Amino acid sequence: MTTVRVAMTGFGNVGNQVAELIDRRREHFATHFGVEVLVTGVCGSTTGLIDPSRISPERLQHKAAFEPGLTGSAFMEQVNADVLVEAGPSDYSTGQPGLDYITSAINRGLHVIAVSKGALVVEGPTLLQSAREKGVQLLMSGASASALPTIDFLTYDLAGTHIKRIEAVLTGTTTFILDTMVSRNASFDEALAEAQQLGIAEPEPSFDVDGWDTAAKVVIIANAVFGVPLAISSLARESLRSLTAEQLGSWKADGLTPRLVGYVNQDEGQVEAGVGIRLYSAEHPFSLTRGSTKALYAETMDLGEFTLLGGASNPRATAAAALKDFHHILTSSE
Amino acid sequence: MTTVRVAMTGFGNVGNQVAELIDRRREHFATHFGVEVLVTGVCGSTTGLIDPSRISPERLQHKAAFEPGLTGSAFMEQVNADVLVEAGPSDYSTGQPGLDYITSAINRGLHVIAVSKGALVVEGPTLLQSAREKGVQLLMSGASASALPTIDFLTYDLAGTHIKRIEAVLTGTTTFILDTMVSRNASFDEALAEAQQLGIAEPEPSFDVDGWDTAAKVVIIANAVFGVPLAISSLARESLRSLTAEQLGSWKADGLTPRLVGYVNQDEGQVEAGVGIRLYSAEHPFSLTRGSTKALYAETMDLGEFTLLGGASNPRATAAAALKDFHHILTSSE
Repeated sequence: MTTVRVAMTGFGNVGNQVAELIDRRREHFATHFGVEVLVTGVCGSTTGLIDPSRISPERLQHKAAFEPGLTGSAFMEQVNADVLVEAGPSDYSTGQPGLDYITSAINRGLHVIAVSKGALVVEGPTLLQSAREKGVQLLMSGASASALPTIDFLTYDLAGTHIKRIEAVLTGTTTFILDTMVSRNASFDEALAEAQQLGIAEPEPSFDVDGWDTAAKVVIIANAVFGVPLAISSLARESLRSLTAEQLGSWKADGLTPRLVGYVNQDEGQVEAGVGIRLYSAEHPFSLTRGSTKALYAETMDLGEFTLLGGASNPRATAAAALKDFHHILTSSE
Repeated sequence: MTTVRVAMTGFGNVGNQVAELIDRRREHFATHFGVEVLVTGVCGSTTGLIDPSRISPERLQHKAAFEPGLTGSAFMEQVNADVLVEAGPSDYSTGQPGLDYITSAINRGLHVIAVSKGALVVEGPTLLQSAREKGVQLLMSGASASALPTIDFLTYDLAGTHIKRIEAVLTGTTTFILDTMVSRNASFDEALAEAQQLGIAEPEPSFDVDGWDTAAKVVIIANAVFGVPLAISSLARESLRSLTAEQLGSWKADGLTPRLVGYVNQDEGQVEAGVGIRLYSAEHPFSLTRGSTKALYAETMDLGEFTLLGGASNPRATAAAALKDFHHILTSSE
């Protein structure tokens, strides 16, 4: 039986769940793909653990047994792996620390499953190109919209047709704030404060309400699907901050639901992408999005138009999305 | 450059569109996959045309130049092809003529793209098993729900997670009849007559209104996705015929939209499938289906729940779904 060794960098909640799911599916991998899957190395920001024979999920809980300093390039030089799962923190200016891990993994001929977004936003096109040249896969289901399969749907389910445009609800916090403004006739500041009290919005809310989170996901999706390099700074972006309770009340009176969406239009090889506030009538499925529900709309040349709604937004779901990528790697290696 | 030769059996509207799409994408196939794609044979029920060097879309229009008798086993023995597109009529009792074409193609080592449903409903599990044994692909995007990517979504986008259940709106005619009963306070017979006048329902409506069409699609999807052989005759099935205007009026008063859906429940390896009338509140995306809109709902163990709506229902869209399958064959042959 072939052995497939997995290294994991960035080991928080999602990383733990990925390790657990891999362990739960070991028998399935053996039966269906004829491979033995082993986690052979794990590292966080300051410590790590390497064992070529297998690290069980139980050992992953004993952080005290992790070796100080076994992280970064030291970890990548010593670990023996076929697949890297990168699930560390995301820095949207430098792409680090994920960028170094992913670059190193691709150069060493590892397939990469990216869960963190930073490296993909900063250097996505370069990384995808390197992966192609090295003949390895760089997959990112867990980095684009939690469990909603945006990239798989657009590249696989709609393969062979021209995609004219997509629109997507990718940030739950903004949906919550917009709906609070409508239901309570609240100002933006009041709705934001409520979202912050509930732990839905961050103390520093700019990432969500100024559209940066949606923009980051649009960049990741567009780079993977449309093959055109997009810089996050080049995207047109609207913020929720300028909205008033009066505006939202008037939209509600007209039966319209506002959503902050990312969009990509593709025409004659030109790709235009951005983040904006759009209004949806009750007949549009986007009007049914609530809370953290993600949604994707696509208009194609020959297949018609599609709306995809749903996907859980929690660490387990994100881990399952990464595991899906792992299945795709096993399938294409058969 | 490698040559990929395509044979087509059953050459009606969809077949013509497939040939046209293949021709339109010849340059794309050459650029992206490094292959030259040629249609080398086409046959209908009584005549056929074979030319190993290429049959252009223009020649396909000159049916008078087709050779009488070049059909059935004579066609399959003479045509030189790597991929069969089967788009003939569907017989849900015998599976013919598609069953013989698909069986012959698999035995000769051809990949098969099924657009017709008959063979898949009658012998789906056997054909899938034969294809696996021969190392060829049997794909069926155009046979499951026009352009809605049911099988791709469930097997690829949701790979690696347990699918607990699916529900799907797969027959546009029944949606039209149900909505007409509601909007006009009409009886089933009145709504059916209107659908027949508009050419939406067939003169013999049993296939649609008694759930056979939905059942056929459920069988195709379930066999491909859940890997459990299902016979169409074993499915529980509800008919629209017993519904009254009063029932629909009372559902409407409660804000509920009725839809005829196919369903599959999977629990502990047990698969239960059927066709039934279910009620959806205004918060459920199925309540937004209109006319020919198809819809798929899936509940998973780790990824959450999803609803997929849309896809055009016309010969061009069905052909584009078949072309998607062709892309998948080229991708996996790279």
